[in-house]
Amino acid sequence: MTQPTHTYASAGVNLDAADRAKLLMREAIRSTLGPEALGPMGGFGGLFALGGLNYHDPVLVSSIDGVGTKLKIAFALNRHDSVGKDLVAHCVNDILVCGARPLFFLDYLALGSMDGDQAVAVVRGVAEGCREAGCALIGGETAAMPDFYAPGEYDLAGAIVGIVERDRIVSGAAIRAGDVALGFPSLGLHTNGYSLARRIFASDDLTAPVPELGRSLGDELLQPHQSYRAAVQPLLDAGLVTGMAHITGGGLVDNIPRALPEGLGVDLDATTWDVFPIFRHIQRRGAVAWEEMLRVFNLGIGFIVFVHSEDEARALKLAGASGARRIGAVHALAGERAEQPLVRVEGLE
Amino acid sequence: MTQPTHTYASAGVNLDAADRAKLLMREAIRSTLGPEALGPMGGFGGLFALGGLNYHDPVLVSSIDGVGTKLKIAFALNRHDSVGKDLVAHCVNDILVCGARPLFFLDYLALGSMDGDQAVAVVRGVAEGCREAGCALIGGETAAMPDFYAPGEYDLAGAIVGIVERDRIVSGAAIRAGDVALGFPSLGLHTNGYSLARRIFASDDLTAPVPELGRSLGDELLQPHQSYRAAVQPLLDAGLVTGMAHITGGGLVDNIPRALPEGLGVDLDATTWDVFPIFRHIQRRGAVAWEEMLRVFNLGIGFIVFVHSEDEARALKLAGASGARRIGAVHALAGERAEQPLVRVEGLE
Repeated sequence: MTQPTHTYASAGVNLDAADRAKLLMREAIRSTLGPEALGPMGGFGGLFALGGLNYHDPVLVSSIDGVGTKLKIAFALNRHDSVGKDLVAHCVNDILVCGARPLFFLDYLALGSMDGDQAVAVVRGVAEGCREAGCALIGGETAAMPDFYAPGEYDLAGAIVGIVERDRIVSGAAIRAGDVALGFPSLGLHTNGYSLARRIFASDDLTAPVPELGRSLGDELLQPHQSYRAAVQPLLDAGLVTGMAHITGGGLVDNIPRALPEGLGVDLDATTWDVFPIFRHIQRRGAVAWEEMLRVFNLGIGFIVFVHSEDEARALKLAGASGARRIGAVHALAGERAEQPLVRVEGLE
Repeated sequence: MTQPTHTYASAGVNLDAADRAKLLMREAIRSTLGPEALGPMGGFGGLFALGGLNYHDPVLVSSIDGVGTKLKIAFALNRHDSVGKDLVAHCVNDILVCGARPLFFLDYLALGSMDGDQAVAVVRGVAEGCREAGCALIGGETAAMPDFYAPGEYDLAGAIVGIVERDRIVSGAAIRAGDVALGFPSLGLHTNGYSLARRIFASDDLTAPVPELGRSLGDELLQPHQSYRAAVQPLLDAGLVTGMAHITGGGLVDNIPRALPEGLGVDLDATTWDVFPIFRHIQRRGAVAWEEMLRVFNLGIGFIVFVHSEDEARALKLAGASGARRIGAVHALAGERAEQPLVRVEGLE
């Protein structure tokens, strides 16, 4: 029996369209490359020369992450130019926590179909995020995966590699009781809590204006993840930072303990910062307990820097227009405080 | 109107189950870590110290990749212990092409649900691949993405970072007319061509023995991607290698040109190697043209090393028991040969 002829294209993988898309991506990618990015050399691997960086005892700091179900908002609105910036900012913040500056980035984009301008828009967003972070986009994989992703849908992940002098690594070990927690405002949900938010707003029109938000739910939920590097670097350069936390999945209560030495807890006062309307909107509409909100969302604080109390004024001055402010302090876990959670947040209602 | 209470768990993200799975992964991950892997330091970023490596002018070589639709075979057979090895081997080969040795790896696993042992099995496979490659698994993201992936399904990607001395980078620029192409046998499809293969075998029982294959289609299609580092490293150390190609998506005809200097082409003789039964089975069952087969599958050759013809005997001796053999040669693109494709394969039928 003769079978019908199969080609790769008929199986849903259009190699020529892929080639066209890659050509369009190339210009955006090139704009991120400095002299350290060698190549292209066949394109199997991305090359980055360390020779000119002049580190005494260099440590590479790396992180890999995705955008999560925020992508579903991008699909619903057919807007694909910002999720790449989300991804890069998230990764930049993750290595900033150790005191590292970004060197290069690689992205993984898996889509249902390679046709259309979608893949190009996504990668341009990644490149834009890299340019802003001073980070070379030296590698990427664009994989057509029919049967995994519906046409027009995709998953996006990326890995960052940065560098720090070994004796400048920030681990949180220097945090001591009495230290001040400086909170840097987020721009919204960033990239966490979308599974819950989408469930709550499942039947809402994403494009309709919402009075409480001053804009549509879609615009609010697609607001890109912010990078804190520019705001935090002056504090690092001045040697003021004892520990940092990037507030992602797990929120304030689960991320801050990753930086805390044993025997210390943090008390935060939520009246010191602006819990954005979107978080209150989610809380009300979903009747979500604040305890749960704290574990899922950043609630308006995207990054935390700990400094000794005597350095607070200088640190806030160096943080400039970032909106950073004192939101709490570090306490020894003794007496009554030992019975409380590591991170206690008051004033949420 | 009071809304029902939403928690993150009811939105499909079970953070406690995630914590349990991460605990189980930790042991496997630890087994990959050498003294260069610092930390954990809060776990936002993975740290790798370069100080002790003693490179004169180090260049980092990195790559990011996924497993592709081979994952659908793993889902169908409910076997999740080998796809992680596929991923690592693919990445190791991609940076081997530049002459780099692996330093560290990061994995991205996005799944529909965090319950069950599946995520642990996948990450254990990644760790096993890393251990075999002498590569530290210093970072990873396990993302629960309900509504993206069905329960029991996932996508898996990973990034590798390796290192090479700048003056030992292999770019293919040293390839010259007369060079010999040494082919290193693959173990099967590796991680490419699965969209086509799955379409052809869509109605087949993956667990039934297939006489032509000597085993079931499922076993054949899940055969892990091979790493060529152990086989190729002695040729690199001896300084014999003028260029390399990893045969992935695009097959022999699209991957070899990535290493070729302008003005050169390669003629391969397919009778010199074993085009495995699985490839003939696919070709026959799908009535796929050999020209198409060449562009989609590795056809039994997973890696190519070019050496000067005077070095052929020594190179083959150094390649030892890898099964490497001469499969073709490099020619100047002049006269009649200039009218032909860059890579010409004869003897396929």
